[in-house]
Parts: sequence; C-alpha cells; structure tokens
Amino acid sequence: MDYQKRINKVQAALRRKKLDAILISEPANRRYLCGYSAPDHGIGESSGVLLVPVAGQAHLLTDFRFQLQAEAEAALTTVTLYPKGLLALLKEMLPDLGVRSLGFESDYTLHSFAGKLTDKCAGLGIKTVPLVGLIEDLRIIKEESEIDKIRASVRLNEQVFQEIYTEIHPKSTEIDLAIAIETCMRRRGAESPSFNSIVATGSRSALPHAVPGPVQILQNQPLMIDMGLILDGYCSDMTRTFAFGNADARYLEIHRLVRKAQLAGIQSIRAGVTGQTVDQAARDIIAKAGYGQNFGHALGHGVGIAIHEAPRLSSRNRKRLKSGMVVTVEPGIYIPGWGGIRLENMVVVREDGCEILNSDTTWLDI
Amino acid sequence: MDYQKRINKVQAALRRKKLDAILISEPANRRYLCGYSAPDHGIGESSGVLLVPVAGQAHLLTDFRFQLQAEAEAALTTVTLYPKGLLALLKEMLPDLGVRSLGFESDYTLHSFAGKLTDKCAGLGIKTVPLVGLIEDLRIIKEESEIDKIRASVRLNEQVFQEIYTEIHPKSTEIDLAIAIETCMRRRGAESPSFNSIVATGSRSALPHAVPGPVQILQNQPLMIDMGLILDGYCSDMTRTFAFGNADARYLEIHRLVRKAQLAGIQSIRAGVTGQTVDQAARDIIAKAGYGQNFGHALGHGVGIAIHEAPRLSSRNRKRLKSGMVVTVEPGIYIPGWGGIRLENMVVVREDGCEILNSDTTWLDI
Repeated sequence: MDYQKRINKVQAALRRKKLDAILISEPANRRYLCGYSAPDHGIGESSGVLLVPVAGQAHLLTDFRFQLQAEAEAALTTVTLYPKGLLALLKEMLPDLGVRSLGFESDYTLHSFAGKLTDKCAGLGIKTVPLVGLIEDLRIIKEESEIDKIRASVRLNEQVFQEIYTEIHPKSTEIDLAIAIETCMRRRGAESPSFNSIVATGSRSALPHAVPGPVQILQNQPLMIDMGLILDGYCSDMTRTFAFGNADARYLEIHRLVRKAQLAGIQSIRAGVTGQTVDQAARDIIAKAGYGQNFGHALGHGVGIAIHEAPRLSSRNRKRLKSGMVVTVEPGIYIPGWGGIRLENMVVVREDGCEILNSDTTWLDI
Repeated sequence: MDYQKRINKVQAALRRKKLDAILISEPANRRYLCGYSAPDHGIGESSGVLLVPVAGQAHLLTDFRFQLQAEAEAALTTVTLYPKGLLALLKEMLPDLGVRSLGFESDYTLHSFAGKLTDKCAGLGIKTVPLVGLIEDLRIIKEESEIDKIRASVRLNEQVFQEIYTEIHPKSTEIDLAIAIETCMRRRGAESPSFNSIVATGSRSALPHAVPGPVQILQNQPLMIDMGLILDGYCSDMTRTFAFGNADARYLEIHRLVRKAQLAGIQSIRAGVTGQTVDQAARDIIAKAGYGQNFGHALGHGVGIAIHEAPRLSSRNRKRLKSGMVVTVEPGIYIPGWGGIRLENMVVVREDGCEILNSDTTWLDI
C-alpha cells in the first residue's frame, strides 16, 4: 500500500480547504492512511489519532499500550505518546507545528471531545473545523491492489463457508456453526470475523440480524448464514440461505424471488447509475410479487477496510456510483413466524457493468 | 432486573434538571435501562436509541432489522421503527410527547449528529442539552443482583481458563490458544468474549495489548493470557501470566513484584479512598523497585455491562470509591525485548475493604 501517496492526497485536500492540519480519529481512515491496524474498543476508547499536517510527515498519537504496534505498523509516521491524554499533547504539538486551523472528523468525534478540543484550541488561537467524508471520499474508490485484497478476502470467506457447509448435520446448533465458522476463519489466516456471524434457523431467520443461539438446525426450514472475515486488512461479506433438508414450494417461491431481485440489482450496476436506482431495480421485483413490506432494509453497502462503508445502495442515496467502488447486493424477504431468505454477493462497479467477486453458488439458483 | 426502577431514577434526574426527555444512545446504558442487548456495529451504525420522557413509558426507537429482538427484550418499552431515519421520527414524536427540552449523551453522540439534532429541534422550538454521565452514574454502583451476575461471569471465565491452561502444549500457538479460549467460552454459554483475548508469548508479552499471532509458545518465557467474557449481560476480565516451562530468576523477581503491587492495590481498596490512592499504592511498589517506567497504564477500571467503565483506578481519578463499585486490579511490568507480566483480578468495593471476585490462583503466588 502506498501510504505516502494517500497522505499526499490528504495534504492536497488540506491546501484546498486552507487548513493547516487534520486530526484523523476514525480507525479505518487511520489504517488507510498509515497502516496502523489497532481497532478502537468503542469510540470512547481510542487506540490513537493520526495528525496530518499540510506539509511534512504525519504523526501517530497513541498511548503506551499501543506503542510497539504503532511503531511496527505505521513506518512512515512518527509515533508520539500521550501519557497525560490527547488534549495535553495537542496543546504542545499544534503550536510547535505552526497549526492555526485544525480539521477534525465530525462523523467520528464525540460531541463532548469536540467541545473540549475547540475550547483548548481557541485558547491557543487555533480554529477548529468539522469535516465530513474527507478520507471516506478517498476510500470509496478502491485501488486495484485493494480490490485484489478484497477478492482474496471473499475467496477465503467462501472456502470457510464451503468447509462448514459440508459439516452441517441434524444435531448442529446455530451456535455450533457460528463457532465453527469463526474458528475456521482464524485457522485459515483471517485477522478476525468482520462482524458477528449470523446463523439462524427456521423462523429465527426472520430477524435480519439474528444472534446465534443454542438452537438445533430445523429440518426442511430456512437456514440463513451471513458471514465475513478480515484478511490482510480488507473485509468480505456473504449471505447464503438454504432449506436444510427439503425445500417446500413456499421456500422455493421466495428463494427464487430473492435471487431474481439480486440478479436485477446486479444487472443494473455500472458507473453513473445512482445507489437509489440499483436499490429500486431489486426492490421492484420483490414489491411486484407482494413482498415489499418484507424487505425492510437497503439493498447493499460498500465494503473495504470497514465492513459497512460508503456507498449505500438505498432509496436515499442519489449519488452516482463510480468505477472501483465495491458493494454488496443483498435483498431479503423476512416473514415473521416463517423465516427469512437473504442472498448476498459482493461486486466491483466498473464503467460498463460490474464484476461479481463471488464464485460460490451454493443454493443460489434452484 | 428491575428496569422500571431504573427508568424511575432517570425520570427523577430529568425532573431535577428540568428536562422533558433524554435520548439514550450508548449501548450499555440502553441495555441497563430496558434490557435491549443489541450492540452497535460502530458508533455510526446505531442499533437504536431509547427515548425516556420525564413521565410515562420509555420508547425504544430502532430499525426494521432489530424489531423482533427489541420487542422480545425490551418488554417495558414501546418499540417504534424509523424507516426514514431517527431524525425524521423524532420530528414527529417529540412534539406529540410535548417535549420542549431534550437531553442527549454528549459522551456517545457524534459531533455531526448532535449538530443535526440541535438544528432539527431548534426548528420545532425544542432546546437540546448535552449531558455527561447521567446513566453512567447509576451504573457505577452495582445492585447485588448485578454483582451476582458479575460473579457468575468471573467464575465461568476462570473455568474456561483452567480448561485451556491444562491443554497448553509446546506446539500450541498464540492463535490456537485464543481460538480455544473463545470457542470454550461460547460452548459454555457466554454471549461472547468481552474483548479480543490476548495471548502473548516471550517478548511479545511486552505489548500490553498484543494481538495473538501464529507464533509457537516459547519455553521458559513469559506467557500472558488476558481474557474475559460476557455472561447474561455482564463482563469479566482476568489476566494470568506464567513462565511456560521453568521460570528463571528474573521472571520470578518481576512476577513477585507485580503480585506484591497487586496485593498492595487490593489492600488499599475500600469505600472512601480515591482511584488515585489505589493506583498509587500499587505503583509505589513497582516504582521503588526501579520499574516505574515499565508500568505505563492505569491500575484498573470498572467492569459491568461494559468491559471498561467507570471508575478508573488511575493517577487522574480523584473521586472517591463507593461501596458496590466493581473494578479490576491489574498492575503490569513490560520490558521491551524481554516480555511483560500482568496480573489481573476483579474486586467489589465494600465499606470496610473489598471482596475479591476471583478464586483462580494459577501462578499468582510463586
């Protein structure tokens, strides 16, 4: 990853905005710009912030616990510790760096911290400026080297799915399968799951975000598995739903409808169309069949360093897709008391269409 | 859990502050007040907010994906969905509820959302008021029924540790052990680990927050295991360090010093002493032996629904401990190139001392 090139882009944006520096607190943005991979244990427990001045080297500010990791991973930055807290360190560093105007990430800074930062800076004659989407706008278009990493992440995720799929037996519980999935991911080299795996049987699959429980897999009913992993810093995300045992007519009808909607969504994707248009293409199929009320979430989301990032494929996104964006396409139909079916693949937006990153076809076309 | 009693306390606080309602966005606060257990997938991806008016029932506002879970778990609240987003729903609900002043959690609200909320409310003639610590101040003192749950969480965590400890062999890798720990937790009924388990061998244990890697456990060197789980909504947290194989003189010296510091910390805990005093009691032992620079973090932190919560046992906490608080006591000495030793137990603060929640004594007194 060419971190210097990315820092250069940020510095160019700072010049355009007439800012002397920016404080990057969002963990995926931080990792994107310098390679430092520590997550935050909640927004109130930062593992560090990246201070990018308009010229010169970036500074990774962190605490004692992360020093060795920061030095090892963020080779292009200087690592500085804040034993007395971030504000105390900034009070020393910002004047030394000649900063008179400081941007911060409005979408990943707490209201309380923003207030303290603004007060502290005002006392030093420094203006603070909330910024939205500055780094996210860079991340949204993936470099080909990033797409290669996402492809590898998708491939490994599929290999894990296929290994687990063959091992499902009538005595398996949801939680057995979730554990097997996450263990297999880590044994095969994933950093971690990219989210808590969803394994939901029967009517429990009607919860789009079901939590796996000590519940045996029900015969001849929907089994939904939504899983993803992080490999070399990049996320994957895939959902497969199938009838464990025999699929009845109702299962087949709904499954085929969801698949049809997914294909319609995928076929509508190319650079230049809006997220709204793609969402609509899939949603129309489901609505026309009378299940519009049962598809209550957006069609898809961007995936990269973060599992959920821009762009959204939703009725509210009127921005146009661009080549190099990576999104999920995941329509679903959820019927309380019966269950749910969701099918999810990932694609790369290209000028003339899209490239499907998945090759697993388990139960897709039935 | 008596959720109604907790809501009553919040409503009493609202009356004192002359507020008509509060918006609770912090997931542990939300769970504490209504039982809804969904975590947030990052602060930008809320699983819902709890709107508590100064009188009457609380309202859990969430989206389609979490509806069934919210209805099942938060029995005392009304569940309302926001298909057009939270702000659009609040625009309808707040006037209906007669709200003229609305508190929000400054420590768990994004700067960007706080701005939008304030603008939207201003348009409706509603004043927004940032609040800090209102629910946290309730959570900090545990009810005895909560302490029972924490005790059960600690006990299960120790059982998992003991099971894994007996299975460590010379070919085990850090990541093998981390997987074994987390699998065992879930098989034995934990909701999940309470944080990513730390398993660090040899010099890698000098990173207080080491990430387990595909690295074989080194003979006759420190092996640090820091692990915790969530059981029935409550967290546990424990660190054991031992020499896998034989401990040399240096290992023994440092281990005994850390244990001495831990005991000094524990012995200083009672209602009425400050977090600073307790931190100092342990730190003095380490500093006098010449390792002050190698103990770079605070002595401990509160544990409850969240793995890290108030109060901190740190040099910066001048508040007095109270009976019913639950904290970790976890001094450590970290020597780059050699390794680190940290020992962590959990205790309940009582009027006349503290109650140690741990019973595992593996390698504590050597």
